[in-house]
Amino acid sequence: MKVYNFSAGPSTLPRQALEQAQKDFLDYNGSGMSVAEMSHRSKVYEEIHNEAISLLRELMGINDDYYVLFLQGGASTQFEAVPLNLLVKGRADYIVTGNFAKKAYKEAKKYGDIALAASSEDKNFTYIPDVDKIEFRDDIDYVHITTNNTIFGTKYNKLPKVKTSLVADMSSNILSEVMDVNAFDLIYAGAQKNIGPAGLTVVIVKKELVNNPMPICPTMLRYAIQAENNSLYNTPPCFSIYMSMLTFRWIKSMGGVKEIQKINEYKAGLLYDFIDNSDFYVNPVAAEDRSIMNVPFVTPDKDTDALFVKEAAANGLVSLKGHRLVGGMRASIYNAMPVEGVKALIDFMKKFEKQQR
Amino acid sequence: MKVYNFSAGPSTLPRQALEQAQKDFLDYNGSGMSVAEMSHRSKVYEEIHNEAISLLRELMGINDDYYVLFLQGGASTQFEAVPLNLLVKGRADYIVTGNFAKKAYKEAKKYGDIALAASSEDKNFTYIPDVDKIEFRDDIDYVHITTNNTIFGTKYNKLPKVKTSLVADMSSNILSEVMDVNAFDLIYAGAQKNIGPAGLTVVIVKKELVNNPMPICPTMLRYAIQAENNSLYNTPPCFSIYMSMLTFRWIKSMGGVKEIQKINEYKAGLLYDFIDNSDFYVNPVAAEDRSIMNVPFVTPDKDTDALFVKEAAANGLVSLKGHRLVGGMRASIYNAMPVEGVKALIDFMKKFEKQQR
Repeated sequence: MKVYNFSAGPSTLPRQALEQAQKDFLDYNGSGMSVAEMSHRSKVYEEIHNEAISLLRELMGINDDYYVLFLQGGASTQFEAVPLNLLVKGRADYIVTGNFAKKAYKEAKKYGDIALAASSEDKNFTYIPDVDKIEFRDDIDYVHITTNNTIFGTKYNKLPKVKTSLVADMSSNILSEVMDVNAFDLIYAGAQKNIGPAGLTVVIVKKELVNNPMPICPTMLRYAIQAENNSLYNTPPCFSIYMSMLTFRWIKSMGGVKEIQKINEYKAGLLYDFIDNSDFYVNPVAAEDRSIMNVPFVTPDKDTDALFVKEAAANGLVSLKGHRLVGGMRASIYNAMPVEGVKALIDFMKKFEKQQR
Repeated sequence: MKVYNFSAGPSTLPRQALEQAQKDFLDYNGSGMSVAEMSHRSKVYEEIHNEAISLLRELMGINDDYYVLFLQGGASTQFEAVPLNLLVKGRADYIVTGNFAKKAYKEAKKYGDIALAASSEDKNFTYIPDVDKIEFRDDIDYVHITTNNTIFGTKYNKLPKVKTSLVADMSSNILSEVMDVNAFDLIYAGAQKNIGPAGLTVVIVKKELVNNPMPICPTMLRYAIQAENNSLYNTPPCFSIYMSMLTFRWIKSMGGVKEIQKINEYKAGLLYDFIDNSDFYVNPVAAEDRSIMNVPFVTPDKDTDALFVKEAAANGLVSLKGHRLVGGMRASIYNAMPVEGVKALIDFMKKFEKQQR
């Protein structure tokens, strides 16, 4: 069955990348080997590794002031690696705009004097606090934000002005719209939304920031160690990196992040417009803070939500169930979700609504 | 070109597993999705996850006293996770039989009173110390060993008798021969040799051992956290786990570890016999301590070694270069290396020797 996969992550990958990987699965580039089984010290793998890094630099406009690291352990590992590497004065401020932002804040509290600079939990994270009104403490090492909130469907459209380093968990909207990397000092992202299969975590970090890890920081979480070794200190997740390279090539072939952003805005626009013009479906997010990657919505009641999820799946629209913290539905429409997928969802929503009336 | 891949890791995967993965790459089990892109919370992925765990339990005879965890970060991360989780008294003894054993020892020293119980570094790790002669300290939390030494081509044939917990890095010989899991309290292994693609680390740990991590142990390195969540605390490396499941199925189809061991002994026997009967090739390892997974060897001089590696590759026998700490060549002949691959190597060795005379 033809399926559109709306999973929040791991999530749909570009068809072109999957087909290429399938074609080359037993014999990559005439090597006689699968990428899944080749030495990470071989020339053939090294080319994949370096192409992935340089494509990401090109697509995001990452200059030589930054390292690009390919790590393991997911964003959850970065919730700890960030304070363990960046706390020098021992103080940082966090803006909590969702579940993962809150986790990042809680984990960091183990390692220093961490303050909650602002939160949108008062309204179940349905908005982004006005960044111009947030007062950060003096003498902090960094401010941490989560640029897109997967569960709640919000995103920052304006960055807080910070006197110190700005750190961002960009897991669910990296590469989805043009961002000025220079506005950040550290960006991290789990691969499994807009980059590639789960198992890879990308860290983009200002070179000057990696040299003062806390003494208790495990070797394997030290950015400097992986930076010195081009992310080959130990065996990297080679196959995930390879698939990511294929995704980066696909983004480039689409015209880069600028063009991808236009498509994403178009896709999200179709869906939000439909919801806003409906008196059956509701999206609870403040209009100006809406994510273009994750669109939560509900029907008039929970039983109908459950029926929607079930019938949608039967119609090839899968993984639409919302997170338990929000309920209802969530359509994750990352880069690789084709326009046709969003249109098919809207068509189904229309049909379902009619059926329920 | 038909290739035999002798890489020490990532290393050759069972052809049957690769072909199955290729076949199902775009549409796993009628789901309409690749395993590389499906939600880790979906039923279809959950079945893969749980089959992988239960097959590993079955193949190794792991009983309910142990957790089986699927983690990230490689064995190198376990060099730190082990002391961070297991040091309660704060003391442990290490036997150092190779480069990775030494790294494990060095990393552990950061976290407690760690002693070198024995080492074979005096003879460049070409033997395993007599375990019956090693005296361990009292009041230690555990003894750490490396059951097979990838770089040096040695393995333990007898385990040290310990009054406390025995911890083993089994990265390069897990599933290669029958081992009594009950003789160990914690086993860890990077997947990329006998299990699956890089990016997955297997930890098998006695349940009673996970409840006293050191306070500085990061959440993401705590065994208890992943144990409580069936290794789904955060997104696991789904595709690597899937490929590992396919490898486990293959081992089972071959008759299990017992039968695989016979084939491994046969393959290693062929190669060692040939080397021992040659006056051109030399393996430096004490005969009784030889690995059946990694076979290092040299020709009479370094230039000839370099020529060997080059010409072997031209003949489809790749990744035979020895580690820089040993030089010469190393044939890694893990489970998935077919007998034909070892025979092809021996044929080439004969031809090459004749050519050099």
